[in-house]
Amino acid sequence: MTGSRFSFTLHATDGKARTGTIAMQRGEIRTPAFMPVGTAATVKAMKPESVRATGADIILGNTYHLMLRPGAERVARLGGLHKFMNWQRPILTDSGGYQVMSLSELRKLTEQGVEFRSHLDGSKHMLTPERSMEIQRLLGSDIVMAFDECPRADRPKDEIAESMELSMRWAKRSRDGFDAGEEHAESAALFGIQQGALHEDLRRISADALTAIGFDGYAVGGLAVGEGQQAMFGVLDYAPTMLPEDRPRYLMGVGKPDDLVGAVERGIDMFDCVLPTRSGRNGQAFTWNGPLNLRNARFAEDTGPLDERCGCPVCTTYSRAYIHHLVKSGEMLGAMLLTEHNLSFYQALMQAMRDAIAAGAFAGFAAGFRRDYLRQGG
Amino acid sequence: MTGSRFSFTLHATDGKARTGTIAMQRGEIRTPAFMPVGTAATVKAMKPESVRATGADIILGNTYHLMLRPGAERVARLGGLHKFMNWQRPILTDSGGYQVMSLSELRKLTEQGVEFRSHLDGSKHMLTPERSMEIQRLLGSDIVMAFDECPRADRPKDEIAESMELSMRWAKRSRDGFDAGEEHAESAALFGIQQGALHEDLRRISADALTAIGFDGYAVGGLAVGEGQQAMFGVLDYAPTMLPEDRPRYLMGVGKPDDLVGAVERGIDMFDCVLPTRSGRNGQAFTWNGPLNLRNARFAEDTGPLDERCGCPVCTTYSRAYIHHLVKSGEMLGAMLLTEHNLSFYQALMQAMRDAIAAGAFAGFAAGFRRDYLRQGG
Repeated sequence: MTGSRFSFTLHATDGKARTGTIAMQRGEIRTPAFMPVGTAATVKAMKPESVRATGADIILGNTYHLMLRPGAERVARLGGLHKFMNWQRPILTDSGGYQVMSLSELRKLTEQGVEFRSHLDGSKHMLTPERSMEIQRLLGSDIVMAFDECPRADRPKDEIAESMELSMRWAKRSRDGFDAGEEHAESAALFGIQQGALHEDLRRISADALTAIGFDGYAVGGLAVGEGQQAMFGVLDYAPTMLPEDRPRYLMGVGKPDDLVGAVERGIDMFDCVLPTRSGRNGQAFTWNGPLNLRNARFAEDTGPLDERCGCPVCTTYSRAYIHHLVKSGEMLGAMLLTEHNLSFYQALMQAMRDAIAAGAFAGFAAGFRRDYLRQGG
Repeated sequence: MTGSRFSFTLHATDGKARTGTIAMQRGEIRTPAFMPVGTAATVKAMKPESVRATGADIILGNTYHLMLRPGAERVARLGGLHKFMNWQRPILTDSGGYQVMSLSELRKLTEQGVEFRSHLDGSKHMLTPERSMEIQRLLGSDIVMAFDECPRADRPKDEIAESMELSMRWAKRSRDGFDAGEEHAESAALFGIQQGALHEDLRRISADALTAIGFDGYAVGGLAVGEGQQAMFGVLDYAPTMLPEDRPRYLMGVGKPDDLVGAVERGIDMFDCVLPTRSGRNGQAFTWNGPLNLRNARFAEDTGPLDERCGCPVCTTYSRAYIHHLVKSGEMLGAMLLTEHNLSFYQALMQAMRDAIAAGAFAGFAAGFRRDYLRQGG
């Protein structure tokens, strides 16, 4: 592990909140970081230069989607994911473990891995820790995620424990598979994923198992699966601090703006979520005063910007009335503009959190954010 | 009519082909010009700055669509169409006459105008020459089109004649209605529309009637309605030269790249068509070697650009393989990139024609274009 491959430098802490920089060969990642989701080799409705212009340092790609279409070997033949989609900065890829359980058909889970049929064409596939590492290597991922199983948080505790133990055995096989990647392993990083659902003792066992194996970073997995914010914060009150302090902590699949603030407050450094992009395609705008539904007729002659406090190219150029018209008319530009604004807002929120932590003023920032953001709904 | 309101300067002619400049308060329009269609206050899947970057000097807006949603009075209250959609250069609006006949329901045509029901919500509306002028004034149009009726070219000649005579009476009422617009009439231009379908004698009567009224420019209407390229070129062999030589001639709703070359060859100066934008959303790319269907599996690992000869941002950045993947995956970015390329290609074609005319080399250019473009299909 050389410094140029992967390093994490903490600049400041404020309570449990941290701000720092991950340095990798393809660029730096300022933390706390939000990673826009580029499921199928595109952050939906955005050109990559526009994604970068929102302030994103890194994006996420989905192993499950990409292995099925266009296929990992094909992406490799075409020069890797970065070249394919024209994003030259870091890319984190998930392991496929979560989506194979939520999206595919006719799954069969064994010690070896998961056999499943594609939701696209019914074709049969097998995902194992070794194959997941191979796929992420073929894609050219910068941050590779260990292959794990993510059970529903409401399953009985003995099932959660059994699943977590399986994920820990798979974490070791992921580590070995990643390390066997030679050239790729010398430039990329590997993150382990803590499981254990809502059980503190299982989270501890999982954290210890992962730490013993050793990873570049650690994800808190198995949350944001329907347990609700209160239960999630309950786990985040203890789970992040079980993980090594000198490594980035990544909360997968989260979340709403107020989720992000609460999670940073509890020691999380990285996030990904489809919410800003998906909501944008559904006519929703995030603002410092809460979300807005642009379909609402009250915006039909509103000449103001989506958010008075936002300096993004959408807010400096277009009115709510125009975006309301686009959304009502089903125009693609409506999705494009709302996605751009939402990603800009998420990045502005991350920057504001980084600044507040550096200034030792995070508690005040978080209180002010909640006062403004939560006072009104969509 | 002051020079700053509207002027047309011919720089060169080559056979019947002409190149020149229309100067208006909001900017210059280089002719031959192609106008991207911005139906509902947006050129679909494009930001306005990207439309401009393709080389477009002017775009088209549709009166029928805009009067129904968001409504002309609403656009006026919001500061006009240019401000609403963030396009500060000239906008030409059609009169609504064509689309009210092709899109609306339960039409009733009288001497007064057309009564119809909206295809969106069934609401009842009336379009007359006077109301069409008022709507185009409310939108803030730079080039206003006279209100006309556009019958199918395959109707009996007596019906075509009757319809054309009605359109000529409406052209006079359009002129009067436009002139009554005072402030708007002092900054905008009004174009008349020749009708007469495939009948040379009727085209002559129509041209003389329009010229007697007097317009800033003249459109050849009633073509591109299913008559085929050969019949269209047959009309264009005589129709443009019936119109005043010192005024721009606009062929409405045309067309394919080879239609444009053949029409410029016959003396046309302006075009609009949904083809480059609509085809882009359907996975089709226009190239100097003919159209390509990006859904085709042969592009799955094609690392070349859409068009080797194109310098647009899409061709310098993305491979056919990537765009194939986006189109197959139903990703919005596929439509965005193909639209941007297609509009860039159309503008490059117009620039090449302007250059060839200026150089007195149009015949050679047209022959070379046809050799490359028509040798292969989609």
